[in-house]
Amino acid sequence: MKSNIKYAVGVDLGGTNVKVGIVSDSGKIIKKTSIDTKASEGPNKVVAQIITAIGQVLNNNKLKIKGIGIGAAGVVIVEKGIVENPPNVPGWKKVKLASIIENYFHIKTKVENDANAAAIAEMMFGAGKKFHSFIMVTLGTGVGGGIIFNKKIYRGNFGAAGEIGHVSIDYQGQQCNCGSFGCVETFVGNKYLVKRVQTELSYHKDSMIWNLINNDLSLLTPLIIEQALLKNDYFATKVVADLGKYLGIALASVANAIDISTFIIGGGVSGFGTPLIKSIQDTTSSRVLKSLKDKIKIIPAKLKNDAGIIGASSLIFYKS
Amino acid sequence: MKSNIKYAVGVDLGGTNVKVGIVSDSGKIIKKTSIDTKASEGPNKVVAQIITAIGQVLNNNKLKIKGIGIGAAGVVIVEKGIVENPPNVPGWKKVKLASIIENYFHIKTKVENDANAAAIAEMMFGAGKKFHSFIMVTLGTGVGGGIIFNKKIYRGNFGAAGEIGHVSIDYQGQQCNCGSFGCVETFVGNKYLVKRVQTELSYHKDSMIWNLINNDLSLLTPLIIEQALLKNDYFATKVVADLGKYLGIALASVANAIDISTFIIGGGVSGFGTPLIKSIQDTTSSRVLKSLKDKIKIIPAKLKNDAGIIGASSLIFYKS
Repeated sequence: MKSNIKYAVGVDLGGTNVKVGIVSDSGKIIKKTSIDTKASEGPNKVVAQIITAIGQVLNNNKLKIKGIGIGAAGVVIVEKGIVENPPNVPGWKKVKLASIIENYFHIKTKVENDANAAAIAEMMFGAGKKFHSFIMVTLGTGVGGGIIFNKKIYRGNFGAAGEIGHVSIDYQGQQCNCGSFGCVETFVGNKYLVKRVQTELSYHKDSMIWNLINNDLSLLTPLIIEQALLKNDYFATKVVADLGKYLGIALASVANAIDISTFIIGGGVSGFGTPLIKSIQDTTSSRVLKSLKDKIKIIPAKLKNDAGIIGASSLIFYKS
Repeated sequence: MKSNIKYAVGVDLGGTNVKVGIVSDSGKIIKKTSIDTKASEGPNKVVAQIITAIGQVLNNNKLKIKGIGIGAAGVVIVEKGIVENPPNVPGWKKVKLASIIENYFHIKTKVENDANAAAIAEMMFGAGKKFHSFIMVTLGTGVGGGIIFNKKIYRGNFGAAGEIGHVSIDYQGQQCNCGSFGCVETFVGNKYLVKRVQTELSYHKDSMIWNLINNDLSLLTPLIIEQALLKNDYFATKVVADLGKYLGIALASVANAIDISTFIIGGGVSGFGTPLIKSIQDTTSSRVLKSLKDKIKIIPAKLKNDAGIIGASSLIFYKS
C-alpha cells in the first residue's frame, strides 16, 4: 500500500547550531540532527555545515522528499532565494543559499526569514490553525515577528514586514543594535534582559537567583530566571511581569496600527509560560483602543523545541 | 452629445461643520456648501443638518448622481453603514447613517472613516496615484491614518486599522484620550500641540508668536504657529521640527512593523509644509531598519481644503 504522506527537509540556521530534520506534512519530525554552525569561520564554512547536516539526515533516507526549506535570521529575498546579513554570521553579505543547496542535492529549495517560517508553522501545525490573521512573536536574542494575514504570510514591500522588535516604546530610551532608540527589543531581547537583571539584582539581595548563579552574575541566563520564576521567586516574578508589560505596550501600538488582535508568543523565553502570557495580555488589553479591548488574544506558541525545523519544512508544504 | 462624466455627493462630517459637495469622477468639485454641525444638540440634530446640507447641493441639480459618500470620524462599520462614537458628537453611539440618508434621498449611500476616505481620495486623485501601498496620515485635532495596500483600502479585522495616532512613542508619557500613554497624538495632535507651545512660550520671550497673539496665550492656534513659521520665527521653526520628529519616530515603528515605506501627510497642520515634511523624513529615515532606510518617502498630500468632500465622494467611485 502506498502512503500519501509527504516529507520535507527543514533547516533551522542559527548562529550557534544548524538544526536539520525530515518532517512529515502533518508537522511530525521523523529524523533530525544538529551540528555546530561555525559562524566565526565565515559564510563558506557555514554553507558547508548546512550541506553536511542535510547530508546526515538524507543518508540512507528512503522517503520521498518534496523539498528543502531553510529558515534564517536576517532579510530574506524569498523570490531570489537570497539570505542577506544574518546577524550572527560575520562576513555574510548576500548568499544565494537556495540555489546552492538546490544544485547540490537536486531537491527544490526555499528560504525564508526564520520568524516568518515560525509564523507559517504555527498557522499550519500550531496555535494559529484556527485564526485567519495573527502575528507571531518570537522572543530570543532578538524579538522577531511574522504576520499572517488572511491565512497568508505578509512579507511587505521589501520582505521586512513583522519587525515587531523594532517598534520603539521609548523614543529617548537606550540605543538598539538597529541604530534606533528604545526599541522593544532593548527591553525584552535576551541580552538586554540579562544585563538589566544583572544590574538590578544588587537591589534584591534576598532573591533566590543569587543562589542559582552561585553569586556569580556572569552565570545569569534567561533559563536561570525561568528556574527562579518556577520557584516563585519574587524578583523573577517581577522581571517576567515587566517583560510582559514592555512587550504588551509594543503589541498595543501594533494592534492599533494594523488591527490584528491575535498574537502568538514563541521563542526561547516562552518558557516563562503563563505569568508572561498573562502580563502581555493585561498590558495589551489595557492599552489598545476601546474597539479592540475585548478582542486582544495573547496565546503561547504550540511548537516548542523543534519549531525552527518544523517551520522551515512548512515552507515546502505551504502554498503561498 | 452625452457626457460620460459621473458625479457623486461627498459629505465631510466634522465636529464643527458639515461640508457637502457635488464632485466629478476626476475629483473636481462642481458645487459645495458648508453648514454648522450643531454637534452639541445631539445626533438627531446632526443627522438633520446632514440632510439639510445635502439638500442644498442637490437643489436644482441636473447632473446624474451616482451615490452619496460620507466620511466621518470614529469607528465606521462600512458593510452595515453604521457610524459609532464620532468623538466630536456627544451622545452619538451607533447610528445607521447610510440607510437613513439612502432612504431619505433614494440615492445609494456609503459611509467610511474619514481618514480612510482621505487615503482613498489621495490614491485616486492625489499624491498616492503612483504608489501601490502607502499610509495616509491626517494631522488635526487627532492623528488619523488610512492604509492603502496594493491599491486597496485595508480596514483590518474590526475596521480599526490605521490608527497611527495611537502608536505610543513613550510608554511613560502623558495619558492620551484613548486611555493609553504617550501616544504620538499626545505629541502632535492640535490640542496637545497648542498646550505645549503655550507652556513653553514663557521661555521664549523673543518669539514673534507673542506679537501674533497680542500676548494673550488663549489666542494661540496651529495657524498662528504656521504664520510665525512662515516668517522664520526661531521658536516656531523648532516647534515644527519637533512635531516632525515625534511623528517620524512613530512612522519608523510602523514602517518596521508592516514594511510600508510611503507616507502621505495631510490634514490641518500640513500648512507647516516643507519644514514639517523634511523633519518627518529625516527622523523616519534615521530610525527605520537598514533595509528600509533608502525607501522611506514622506510626501505632502495633494488634496488640501476640500480633501474631506473629495475623499467622501471617492467612496462612490472607488471599487473595493
